[in-house]
Amino acid sequence: MSERTVFFLSDQTGVTAETLGHSLLTQFNSQDFRQVTLPFIDSDDKAEEAVRKINAAAEKGGLRPIVFSTLVQDDFRSTIRQAEGLHLDIFDAFLEPLERELQQKSTHEPGRAHGMSDIDSYMKRIEATNFALANDDGGITRNYEVADVILIGVSRSGKTPTCLYLALQYGVYAANFPLTDEELDSGTLPDILLSQKEKLVGLTIAPTRLQQIRKERRALGQYSSAQQVRYELREAEKIFSKYDVPHINTTELSIEEIASRILNTTGVERRVRP
Amino acid sequence: MSERTVFFLSDQTGVTAETLGHSLLTQFNSQDFRQVTLPFIDSDDKAEEAVRKINAAAEKGGLRPIVFSTLVQDDFRSTIRQAEGLHLDIFDAFLEPLERELQQKSTHEPGRAHGMSDIDSYMKRIEATNFALANDDGGITRNYEVADVILIGVSRSGKTPTCLYLALQYGVYAANFPLTDEELDSGTLPDILLSQKEKLVGLTIAPTRLQQIRKERRALGQYSSAQQVRYELREAEKIFSKYDVPHINTTELSIEEIASRILNTTGVERRVRP
Repeated sequence: MSERTVFFLSDQTGVTAETLGHSLLTQFNSQDFRQVTLPFIDSDDKAEEAVRKINAAAEKGGLRPIVFSTLVQDDFRSTIRQAEGLHLDIFDAFLEPLERELQQKSTHEPGRAHGMSDIDSYMKRIEATNFALANDDGGITRNYEVADVILIGVSRSGKTPTCLYLALQYGVYAANFPLTDEELDSGTLPDILLSQKEKLVGLTIAPTRLQQIRKERRALGQYSSAQQVRYELREAEKIFSKYDVPHINTTELSIEEIASRILNTTGVERRVRP
Repeated sequence: MSERTVFFLSDQTGVTAETLGHSLLTQFNSQDFRQVTLPFIDSDDKAEEAVRKINAAAEKGGLRPIVFSTLVQDDFRSTIRQAEGLHLDIFDAFLEPLERELQQKSTHEPGRAHGMSDIDSYMKRIEATNFALANDDGGITRNYEVADVILIGVSRSGKTPTCLYLALQYGVYAANFPLTDEELDSGTLPDILLSQKEKLVGLTIAPTRLQQIRKERRALGQYSSAQQVRYELREAEKIFSKYDVPHINTTELSIEEIASRILNTTGVERRVRP
Protein backbone atom coordinates (compact mmCIF):
# COMPACT_ATOMS: atom_id res chain seq x y z
CA MET A 1 0.00 0.00 0.00
CA SER A 2 1.24 3.48 -0.71
CA GLU A 3 2.22 5.53 2.26
CA ARG A 4 2.34 9.28 2.70
CA THR A 5 5.05 10.82 4.87
CA VAL A 6 4.65 14.17 6.58
CA PHE A 7 7.82 16.06 7.45
CA PHE A 8 8.16 18.79 10.07
CA LEU A 9 11.27 20.86 9.36
CA SER A 10 12.72 23.59 11.51
CA ASP A 11 15.88 25.53 12.24
CA GLN A 12 14.79 25.31 15.86
CA THR A 13 12.99 22.56 17.80
CA GLY A 14 10.26 21.81 15.28
CA VAL A 15 7.48 22.45 17.80
CA THR A 16 5.88 25.22 15.72
CA ALA A 17 5.94 23.17 12.51
CA GLU A 18 4.44 20.19 14.35
CA THR A 19 1.73 22.26 16.00
CA LEU A 20 0.78 23.87 12.70
CA GLY A 21 0.86 20.61 10.76
CA HIS A 22 -1.11 18.70 13.31
CA SER A 23 -3.89 21.32 13.39
CA LEU A 24 -4.26 21.02 9.64
CA LEU A 25 -3.94 17.25 9.38
CA THR A 26 -6.71 16.64 11.94
CA GLN A 27 -9.00 18.09 9.27
CA PHE A 28 -8.32 14.98 7.17
CA ASN A 29 -9.13 12.33 9.69
CA SER A 30 -9.45 9.37 7.38
CA GLN A 31 -5.84 9.58 6.32
CA ASP A 32 -2.84 7.91 7.88
CA PHE A 33 0.53 9.55 7.79
CA ARG A 34 4.02 8.58 8.74
CA GLN A 35 5.43 11.54 10.69
CA VAL A 36 9.06 12.62 10.76
CA THR A 37 10.49 15.65 12.54
CA LEU A 38 13.80 17.10 11.37
CA PRO A 39 14.82 19.83 13.85
CA PHE A 40 17.85 22.14 14.02
CA ILE A 41 18.37 22.53 10.26
CA ASP A 42 20.98 25.25 10.58
CA SER A 43 23.58 24.42 7.94
CA ASP A 44 23.73 23.67 4.22
CA ASP A 45 24.68 20.09 5.03
CA LYS A 46 21.64 19.57 7.19
CA ALA A 47 19.34 21.16 4.61
CA GLU A 48 20.72 18.85 1.91
CA GLU A 49 20.40 15.86 4.22
CA ALA A 50 16.74 16.79 4.75
CA VAL A 51 16.21 16.96 0.96
CA ARG A 52 17.65 13.44 0.61
CA LYS A 53 15.35 12.12 3.34
CA ILE A 54 12.27 13.71 1.77
CA ASN A 55 13.12 12.39 -1.69
CA ALA A 56 13.76 8.91 -0.29
CA ALA A 57 10.35 8.94 1.40
CA ALA A 58 8.70 10.08 -1.84
CA GLU A 59 10.28 7.25 -3.76
CA LYS A 60 9.63 4.59 -1.15
CA GLY A 61 6.05 5.57 -0.24
CA GLY A 62 4.86 6.27 -3.77
CA LEU A 63 3.07 9.43 -2.66
CA ARG A 64 4.38 13.00 -2.55
CA PRO A 65 5.42 13.90 1.02
CA ILE A 66 3.91 16.90 2.77
CA VAL A 67 6.53 19.24 4.19
CA PHE A 68 5.58 21.65 6.97
CA SER A 69 8.47 23.96 7.65
CA THR A 70 9.41 26.99 9.65
CA LEU A 71 12.74 27.95 8.15
CA VAL A 72 13.70 31.55 8.59
CA GLN A 73 16.71 31.72 6.32
CA ASP A 74 16.02 32.09 2.60
CA ASP A 75 18.93 29.91 1.47
CA PHE A 76 17.89 26.90 3.53
CA ARG A 77 14.29 27.41 2.42
CA SER A 78 15.28 27.36 -1.22
CA THR A 79 17.40 24.25 -0.75
CA ILE A 80 14.47 22.46 0.88
CA ARG A 81 12.14 23.56 -1.95
CA GLN A 82 14.10 21.30 -4.30
CA ALA A 83 12.76 18.24 -2.51
CA GLU A 84 9.80 16.41 -3.99
CA GLY A 85 6.76 17.36 -1.91
CA LEU A 86 3.94 19.76 -1.10
CA HIS A 87 5.72 22.58 0.74
CA LEU A 88 3.84 24.59 3.34
CA ASP A 89 5.95 27.16 5.16
CA ILE A 90 4.56 29.77 7.51
CA PHE A 91 7.30 32.25 6.68
CA ASP A 92 6.51 31.95 2.97
CA ALA A 93 2.84 32.49 3.63
CA PHE A 94 2.78 35.18 6.27
CA LEU A 95 6.02 37.16 6.42
CA GLU A 96 5.29 39.37 3.45
CA PRO A 97 1.87 40.63 4.60
CA LEU A 98 3.36 41.21 8.05
CA GLU A 99 6.29 43.18 6.65
CA ARG A 100 3.87 45.35 4.69
CA GLU A 101 1.66 45.93 7.70
CA LEU A 102 4.48 46.70 10.11
CA GLN A 103 6.43 48.63 7.46
CA GLN A 104 9.58 46.84 8.54
CA LYS A 105 11.73 44.13 7.01
CA SER A 106 11.90 40.96 9.06
CA THR A 107 15.28 40.01 10.47
CA HIS A 108 15.39 36.63 8.70
CA GLU A 109 17.55 35.43 11.54
CA PRO A 110 16.83 32.15 13.20
CA GLY A 111 15.26 33.63 16.24
CA ARG A 112 14.22 32.41 19.54
CA ALA A 113 10.92 31.40 18.10
CA HIS A 114 10.01 29.42 21.18
CA GLY A 115 9.18 31.22 24.26
CA MET A 116 10.92 29.51 27.07
CA SER A 117 14.27 30.92 26.08
CA ASP A 118 14.73 34.30 27.62
CA ILE A 119 16.13 34.31 31.11
CA ASP A 120 13.20 35.99 32.77
CA SER A 121 10.64 33.55 31.31
CA TYR A 122 12.89 30.62 32.11
CA MET A 123 13.11 31.64 35.75
CA LYS A 124 9.38 32.22 36.01
CA ARG A 125 8.61 28.81 34.56
CA ILE A 126 11.10 27.11 36.86
CA GLU A 127 9.72 28.86 39.91
CA ALA A 128 6.16 27.99 38.94
CA THR A 129 7.20 24.35 38.39
CA ASN A 130 8.83 24.22 41.81
CA PHE A 131 5.70 25.70 43.30
CA ALA A 132 3.53 23.04 41.62
CA LEU A 133 5.83 20.26 42.85
CA ALA A 134 5.91 21.56 46.42
CA ASN A 135 2.15 22.07 46.48
CA ASP A 136 1.18 18.87 44.72
CA ASP A 137 -1.40 16.55 46.18
CA GLY A 138 -2.09 18.71 49.22
CA GLY A 139 1.71 18.52 49.74
CA ILE A 140 3.87 19.39 52.67
CA THR A 141 4.04 23.07 51.89
CA ARG A 142 0.75 24.78 51.40
CA ASN A 143 1.66 28.21 50.20
CA TYR A 144 -1.86 28.77 49.05
CA GLU A 145 -1.67 32.49 49.66
CA VAL A 146 0.73 32.86 46.73
CA ALA A 147 -1.10 30.39 44.47
CA ASP A 148 -2.87 31.71 41.39
CA VAL A 149 -5.22 28.77 41.37
CA ILE A 150 -5.88 25.68 43.54
CA LEU A 151 -7.31 22.61 41.82
CA ILE A 152 -9.48 20.24 43.82
CA GLY A 153 -10.86 16.87 42.77
CA VAL A 154 -10.74 13.15 43.48
CA SER A 155 -7.68 11.01 42.81
CA ARG A 156 -6.82 10.78 39.08
CA SER A 157 -9.12 13.55 37.93
CA GLY A 158 -6.17 15.25 36.20
CA LYS A 159 -4.92 17.67 38.86
CA THR A 160 -1.16 17.01 38.86
CA PRO A 161 -0.44 17.07 35.11
CA THR A 162 -2.65 20.13 34.72
CA CYS A 163 -0.76 22.00 37.46
CA LEU A 164 2.59 21.10 35.88
CA TYR A 165 1.38 22.14 32.45
CA LEU A 166 0.11 25.49 33.82
CA ALA A 167 3.56 26.03 35.35
CA LEU A 168 5.68 25.01 32.37
CA GLN A 169 3.55 26.63 29.68
CA TYR A 170 2.24 29.74 31.39
CA GLY A 171 4.33 30.26 34.53
CA VAL A 172 1.11 30.10 36.56
CA TYR A 173 1.33 29.06 40.22
CA ALA A 174 -1.06 26.13 40.54
CA ALA A 175 -1.50 24.05 43.69
CA ASN A 176 -3.68 21.00 43.99
CA PHE A 177 -5.53 19.39 46.85
CA PRO A 178 -7.06 15.91 46.60
CA LEU A 179 -10.60 15.32 47.84
CA THR A 180 -10.31 12.20 49.99
CA ASP A 181 -12.59 10.42 52.45
CA GLU A 182 -12.17 13.23 54.94
CA GLU A 183 -13.77 15.78 52.64
CA LEU A 184 -16.09 13.44 50.75
CA ASP A 185 -17.66 11.81 53.81
CA SER A 186 -18.19 15.08 55.64
CA GLY A 187 -19.13 17.09 52.56
CA THR A 188 -16.94 19.94 53.77
CA LEU A 189 -13.71 21.59 52.69
CA PRO A 190 -10.96 22.38 55.20
CA ASP A 191 -10.43 25.94 56.40
CA ILE A 192 -7.11 26.21 54.59
CA LEU A 193 -9.02 25.94 51.30
CA LEU A 194 -12.00 28.02 52.35
CA SER A 195 -9.74 30.93 53.21
CA GLN A 196 -8.66 30.93 49.53
CA LYS A 197 -12.07 30.08 48.14
CA GLU A 198 -11.85 32.43 45.16
CA LYS A 199 -8.84 30.46 43.84
CA LEU A 200 -10.55 27.07 43.81
CA VAL A 201 -11.36 25.23 40.61
CA GLY A 202 -12.90 21.75 40.72
CA LEU A 203 -12.09 18.97 38.28
CA THR A 204 -14.62 16.26 37.59
CA ILE A 205 -14.72 13.39 35.12
CA ALA A 206 -17.12 10.70 33.87
CA PRO A 207 -17.21 7.64 36.19
CA THR A 208 -16.39 5.11 33.45
CA ARG A 209 -13.41 7.15 32.34
CA LEU A 210 -12.11 7.56 35.88
CA GLN A 211 -12.49 3.86 36.48
CA GLN A 212 -10.47 3.14 33.35
CA ILE A 213 -7.70 5.51 34.44
CA ARG A 214 -7.59 4.11 37.96
CA LYS A 215 -7.42 0.54 36.67
CA GLU A 216 -4.18 1.40 34.91
CA ARG A 217 -2.76 2.19 38.30
CA ARG A 218 -4.35 -0.50 40.42
CA ALA A 219 -6.43 -3.06 38.58
CA LEU A 220 -8.21 -4.57 41.56
CA GLY A 221 -9.77 -3.42 44.80
CA GLN A 222 -12.14 -0.71 45.89
CA TYR A 223 -10.05 2.14 44.43
CA SER A 224 -11.10 1.31 40.89
CA SER A 225 -14.52 -0.20 41.57
CA ALA A 226 -17.52 1.29 39.79
CA GLN A 227 -19.29 1.89 43.08
CA GLN A 228 -16.39 3.72 44.72
CA VAL A 229 -15.72 5.88 41.69
CA ARG A 230 -19.38 6.88 41.39
CA TYR A 231 -19.58 7.66 45.13
CA GLU A 232 -16.49 9.86 45.08
CA LEU A 233 -17.51 11.80 42.01
CA ARG A 234 -21.05 12.38 43.29
CA GLU A 235 -19.79 13.66 46.64
CA ALA A 236 -17.13 15.83 44.99
CA GLU A 237 -19.78 17.43 42.77
CA LYS A 238 -21.95 18.10 45.83
CA ILE A 239 -19.01 19.92 47.38
CA PHE A 240 -18.52 22.02 44.23
CA SER A 241 -22.20 23.04 44.35
CA LYS A 242 -22.28 23.67 48.08
CA TYR A 243 -19.33 26.07 47.96
CA ASP A 244 -20.11 27.38 44.49
CA VAL A 245 -16.72 26.26 43.11
CA PRO A 246 -16.48 26.53 39.30
CA HIS A 247 -15.65 23.13 37.86
CA ILE A 248 -14.54 21.54 34.64
CA ASN A 249 -15.38 18.12 33.29
CA THR A 250 -12.12 16.69 32.00
CA THR A 251 -13.51 13.53 30.38
CA GLU A 252 -12.99 14.56 26.78
CA LEU A 253 -10.33 17.18 27.27
CA SER A 254 -6.59 17.14 26.73
CA ILE A 255 -4.25 18.52 29.38
CA GLU A 256 -3.80 21.62 27.22
CA GLU A 257 -7.55 22.14 27.01
CA ILE A 258 -8.07 21.72 30.76
CA ALA A 259 -5.32 24.28 31.42
CA SER A 260 -6.72 26.68 28.87
CA ARG A 261 -10.23 26.42 30.29
CA ILE A 262 -8.93 27.09 33.79
CA LEU A 263 -7.30 30.33 32.64
CA ASN A 264 -10.47 31.23 30.78
CA THR A 265 -12.77 30.46 33.73
CA THR A 266 -10.73 32.16 36.43
CA GLY A 267 -9.28 35.06 34.46
CA VAL A 268 -5.86 34.24 35.95
CA GLU A 269 -3.15 36.06 33.97
CA ARG A 270 -0.34 34.00 32.54
CA ARG A 271 3.07 35.12 33.78
CA VAL A 272 4.85 34.24 30.53
CA ARG A 273 3.83 34.27 26.88
CA PRO A 274 4.63 31.35 24.60
CA MET B 1 1.90 56.65 21.72
CA SER B 2 0.11 54.35 19.36
CA GLU B 3 -0.09 50.74 20.35
CA ARG B 4 -0.51 47.64 18.22
CA THR B 5 -2.55 44.74 19.56
CA VAL B 6 -2.04 41.17 18.40
CA PHE B 7 -4.97 38.80 18.78
CA PHE B 8 -4.79 35.01 18.88
CA LEU B 9 -8.19 33.54 18.03
CA SER B 10 -9.21 29.93 18.16
CA ASP B 11 -12.17 27.60 18.41
CA GLN B 12 -9.94 25.52 20.67
CA THR B 13 -7.29 26.54 23.21
CA GLY B 14 -5.44 29.10 21.11
CA VAL B 15 -2.09 27.32 21.51
CA THR B 16 -1.63 26.82 17.75
CA ALA B 17 -2.46 30.45 16.94
CA GLU B 18 -0.09 31.65 19.66
CA THR B 19 2.74 29.36 18.55
CA LEU B 20 2.36 30.45 14.94
CA GLY B 21 2.05 34.13 15.78
CA HIS B 22 4.97 34.14 18.14
CA SER B 23 7.28 32.48 15.59
CA LEU B 24 6.46 35.21 13.11
CA LEU B 25 6.56 38.15 15.51
CA THR B 26 10.05 37.29 16.78
CA GLN B 27 11.15 38.25 13.26
CA PHE B 28 10.23 41.85 14.08
CA ASN B 29 12.12 42.29 17.28
CA SER B 30 12.02 46.04 17.57
CA GLN B 31 8.27 46.11 17.85
CA ASP B 32 6.17 45.95 20.98
CA PHE B 33 2.78 44.35 20.93
CA ARG B 34 -0.07 44.00 23.36
CA GLN B 35 -1.12 40.34 23.19
CA VAL B 36 -4.64 39.04 23.69
CA THR B 37 -5.77 35.43 23.37
CA LEU B 38 -9.44 34.70 22.71
CA PRO B 39 -9.93 30.92 22.91
CA PHE B 40 -13.00 28.70 22.50
CA ILE B 41 -14.77 30.81 19.83
CA ASP B 42 -17.47 28.25 19.13
CA SER B 43 -20.66 30.27 18.69
CA ASP B 44 -21.92 33.27 16.71
CA ASP B 45 -22.07 35.27 19.92
CA LYS B 46 -18.46 34.61 20.75
CA ALA B 47 -17.36 35.43 17.20
CA GLU B 48 -19.22 38.74 17.35
CA GLU B 49 -17.80 39.48 20.78
CA ALA B 50 -14.31 38.92 19.34
CA VAL B 51 -15.05 41.34 16.48
CA ARG B 52 -16.08 43.99 19.00
CA LYS B 53 -12.87 43.48 20.99
CA ILE B 54 -10.69 43.71 17.89
CA ASN B 55 -12.44 46.86 16.68
CA ALA B 56 -12.17 48.44 20.11
CA ALA B 57 -8.41 47.73 20.16
CA ALA B 58 -8.06 49.23 16.65
CA GLU B 59 -9.81 52.40 17.73
CA LYS B 60 -8.00 52.74 21.03
CA GLY B 61 -4.49 51.88 19.86
CA GLY B 62 -4.60 53.84 16.61
CA LEU B 63 -2.95 50.96 14.71
CA ARG B 64 -4.59 48.09 12.88
CA PRO B 65 -4.53 44.94 15.03
CA ILE B 66 -2.92 41.75 13.77
CA VAL B 67 -5.22 38.75 14.05
CA PHE B 68 -3.73 35.25 14.05
CA SER B 69 -6.51 32.73 13.93
CA THR B 70 -7.12 29.03 13.61
CA LEU B 71 -10.87 28.90 13.04
CA VAL B 72 -12.08 25.81 11.28
CA GLN B 73 -15.66 26.80 10.59
CA ASP B 74 -16.26 29.05 7.60
CA ASP B 75 -19.08 31.04 9.18
CA PHE B 76 -17.05 32.06 12.22
CA ARG B 77 -14.11 32.86 9.99
CA SER B 78 -16.19 35.16 7.84
CA THR B 79 -17.65 36.89 10.90
CA ILE B 80 -14.15 37.53 12.24
CA ARG B 81 -13.02 38.87 8.84
CA GLN B 82 -15.33 41.83 9.36
CA ALA B 83 -13.11 43.09 12.15
CA GLU B 84 -10.57 45.81 11.40
CA GLY B 85 -7.19 44.12 11.20
CA LEU B 86 -4.57 42.16 9.28
CA HIS B 87 -5.99 38.64 9.25
CA LEU B 88 -3.63 35.67 9.08
CA ASP B 89 -5.34 32.29 9.32
CA ILE B 90 -3.61 28.99 8.76
CA PHE B 91 -6.75 27.34 7.45
CA ASP B 92 -7.18 30.10 4.87
CA ALA B 93 -3.58 29.73 3.79
CA PHE B 94 -3.01 26.00 3.81
CA LEU B 95 -6.27 24.03 3.66
CA GLU B 96 -6.82 24.44 -0.06
CA PRO B 97 -3.40 23.15 -1.19
CA LEU B 98 -3.75 20.28 1.27
CA GLU B 99 -7.21 19.39 -0.04
CA ARG B 100 -5.86 19.35 -3.60
CA GLU B 101 -2.88 17.23 -2.61
CA LEU B 102 -4.86 14.71 -0.57
CA GLN B 103 -7.80 14.79 -3.01
CA GLN B 104 -10.16 15.01 -0.09
CA LYS B 105 -12.33 17.78 1.35
CA SER B 106 -11.39 18.75 4.89
CA THR B 107 -14.01 18.09 7.57
CA HIS B 108 -14.25 21.75 8.59
CA GLU B 109 -15.19 20.53 12.01
CA PRO B 110 -13.54 21.97 15.06
CA GLY B 111 -11.28 19.08 15.68
CA ARG B 112 -9.08 17.95 18.41
CA ALA B 113 -6.33 20.08 17.00
CA HIS B 114 -4.22 19.62 20.10
CA GLY B 115 -2.69 16.33 20.67
CA MET B 116 -3.18 15.54 24.27
CA SER B 117 -6.81 14.72 23.74
CA ASP B 118 -7.18 11.15 22.71
CA ILE B 119 -7.40 8.68 25.50
CA ASP B 120 -4.33 6.71 24.60
CA SER B 121 -2.08 9.79 24.39
CA TYR B 122 -3.58 11.17 27.58
CA MET B 123 -2.75 8.00 29.48
CA LYS B 124 0.76 7.85 28.10
CA ARG B 125 1.46 11.42 29.09
CA ILE B 126 0.05 10.87 32.57
CA GLU B 127 2.10 7.72 33.05
CA ALA B 128 5.25 9.45 31.84
CA THR B 129 4.56 12.38 34.19
CA ASN B 130 4.12 10.02 37.13
CA PHE B 131 7.35 8.33 36.18
CA ALA B 132 9.19 11.67 36.10
CA LEU B 133 7.76 12.64 39.50
CA ALA B 134 8.66 9.30 41.10
CA ASN B 135 12.15 9.36 39.61
CA ASP B 136 12.89 13.03 40.21
CA ASP B 137 16.08 14.09 41.93
CA GLY B 138 17.42 10.57 42.36
CA GLY B 139 14.03 9.90 44.02
CA ILE B 140 12.80 7.06 46.14
CA THR B 141 11.92 4.82 43.24
CA ARG B 142 14.68 4.27 40.75
CA ASN B 143 13.01 2.43 37.94
CA TYR B 144 15.91 3.18 35.68
CA GLU B 145 15.44 0.00 33.70
CA VAL B 146 12.21 1.37 32.21
CA ALA B 147 13.54 4.92 31.73
CA ASP B 148 14.06 6.19 28.19
CA VAL B 149 16.62 8.68 29.37
CA ILE B 150 18.32 9.61 32.67
CA LEU B 151 19.51 13.19 33.08
CA ILE B 152 22.47 13.90 35.32
CA GLY B 153 23.86 17.26 36.38
CA VAL B 154 24.44 19.53 39.36
CA SER B 155 21.61 21.18 41.29
CA ARG B 156 19.66 23.71 39.17
CA SER B 157 21.10 22.71 35.84
CA GLY B 158 17.57 22.23 34.48
CA LYS B 159 16.93 18.53 35.08
CA THR B 160 13.48 18.56 36.70
CA PRO B 161 11.61 20.89 34.33
CA THR B 162 13.18 19.14 31.35
CA CYS B 163 12.04 15.72 32.58
CA LEU B 164 8.51 17.01 33.17
CA TYR B 165 8.43 18.64 29.75
CA LEU B 166 9.64 15.43 28.07
CA ALA B 167 6.82 13.58 29.85
CA LEU B 168 4.00 16.04 29.17
CA GLN B 169 4.95 16.88 25.61
CA TYR B 170 6.33 13.61 24.28
CA GLY B 171 5.30 10.89 26.76
CA VAL B 172 8.98 10.07 27.22
CA TYR B 173 10.07 8.40 30.48
CA ALA B 174 12.77 10.67 31.87
CA ALA B 175 14.46 10.18 35.25
CA ASN B 176 16.98 12.51 36.77
CA PHE B 177 19.82 12.04 39.20
CA PRO B 178 21.63 14.98 40.84
CA LEU B 179 25.40 15.04 40.95
CA THR B 180 26.20 15.89 44.56
CA ASP B 181 29.36 15.87 46.71
CA GLU B 182 29.41 12.10 46.67
CA GLU B 183 29.86 11.91 42.91
CA LEU B 184 31.73 15.19 42.45
CA ASP B 185 34.37 14.57 45.11
CA SER B 186 35.04 11.00 44.03
CA GLY B 187 34.70 11.64 40.31
CA THR B 188 32.66 8.46 39.94
CA LEU B 189 29.09 7.57 39.13
CA PRO B 190 27.18 5.00 41.21
CA ASP B 191 26.63 1.51 39.84
CA ILE B 192 22.89 2.08 39.48
CA LEU B 193 23.70 4.67 36.80
CA LEU B 194 26.57 2.81 35.20
CA SER B 195 24.35 -0.19 34.59
CA GLN B 196 22.18 2.11 32.42
CA LYS B 197 25.03 4.09 30.95
CA GLU B 198 23.61 4.27 27.45
CA LYS B 199 20.60 6.23 28.79
CA LEU B 200 22.62 8.98 30.47
CA VAL B 201 22.60 12.57 29.23
CA GLY B 202 24.49 15.26 31.12
CA LEU B 203 23.33 18.83 31.56
CA THR B 204 25.82 21.61 32.08
CA ILE B 205 25.49 25.37 32.25
CA ALA B 206 27.70 28.48 32.43
CA PRO B 207 28.90 29.22 35.99
CA THR B 208 27.57 32.80 36.05
CA ARG B 209 24.15 31.67 34.90
CA LEU B 210 24.01 28.86 37.44
CA GLN B 211 25.01 31.26 40.17
CA GLN B 212 22.22 33.60 39.16
CA ILE B 213 19.66 30.78 39.21
CA ARG B 214 20.85 29.48 42.57
CA LYS B 215 20.73 32.96 44.10
CA GLU B 216 17.02 33.11 43.35
CA ARG B 217 16.64 30.12 45.61
CA ARG B 218 19.16 30.91 48.32
CA ALA B 219 20.87 34.27 48.10
CA LEU B 220 23.64 33.64 50.58
CA GLY B 221 25.99 30.82 51.52
CA GLN B 222 28.23 28.40 49.73
CA TYR B 223 25.45 26.99 47.51
CA SER B 224 25.42 30.06 45.29
CA SER B 225 29.04 31.16 45.70
CA ALA B 226 31.12 31.60 42.54
CA GLN B 227 33.74 29.21 43.84
CA GLN B 228 31.33 26.39 44.66
CA VAL B 229 29.46 26.72 41.38
CA ARG B 230 32.67 26.62 39.36
CA TYR B 231 33.94 23.62 41.34
CA GLU B 232 30.75 21.62 40.83
CA LEU B 233 30.51 22.33 37.12
CA ARG B 234 34.15 21.51 36.51
CA GLU B 235 33.89 18.18 38.32
CA ALA B 236 30.61 17.34 36.60
CA GLU B 237 32.17 17.95 33.20
CA LYS B 238 35.10 15.71 34.16
CA ILE B 239 32.60 12.96 34.95
CA PHE B 240 30.89 13.43 31.56
CA SER B 241 34.27 13.06 29.81
CA LYS B 242 35.43 10.14 31.93
CA TYR B 243 32.32 8.08 31.18
CA ASP B 244 31.79 9.49 27.71
CA VAL B 245 28.31 10.81 28.56
CA PRO B 246 26.83 13.09 25.85
CA HIS B 247 26.02 16.46 27.40
CA ILE B 248 24.15 19.62 26.59
CA ASN B 249 24.95 23.15 27.67
CA THR B 250 21.64 24.66 28.77
CA THR B 251 22.85 28.23 29.32
CA GLU B 252 21.07 29.80 26.37
CA LEU B 253 18.39 27.21 25.80
CA SER B 254 14.72 27.13 26.63
CA ILE B 255 13.19 24.07 28.27
CA GLU B 256 11.69 23.16 24.89
CA GLU B 257 15.07 23.37 23.23
CA ILE B 258 16.80 21.26 25.88
CA ALA B 259 14.12 18.59 25.51
CA SER B 260 14.31 18.67 21.74
CA ARG B 261 18.10 18.37 21.75
CA ILE B 262 17.91 15.40 24.12
CA LEU B 263 15.61 13.55 21.72
CA ASN B 264 17.86 14.51 18.84
CA THR B 265 21.07 13.41 20.63
CA THR B 266 19.80 10.11 21.99
CA GLY B 267 17.46 9.10 19.21
CA VAL B 268 14.82 8.27 21.85
CA GLU B 269 11.44 7.90 20.17
CA ARG B 270 8.59 10.01 21.45
CA ARG B 271 5.63 7.93 22.65
CA VAL B 272 3.05 10.50 21.60
CA ARG B 273 2.82 13.03 18.78
CA PRO B 274 1.66 16.60 19.42
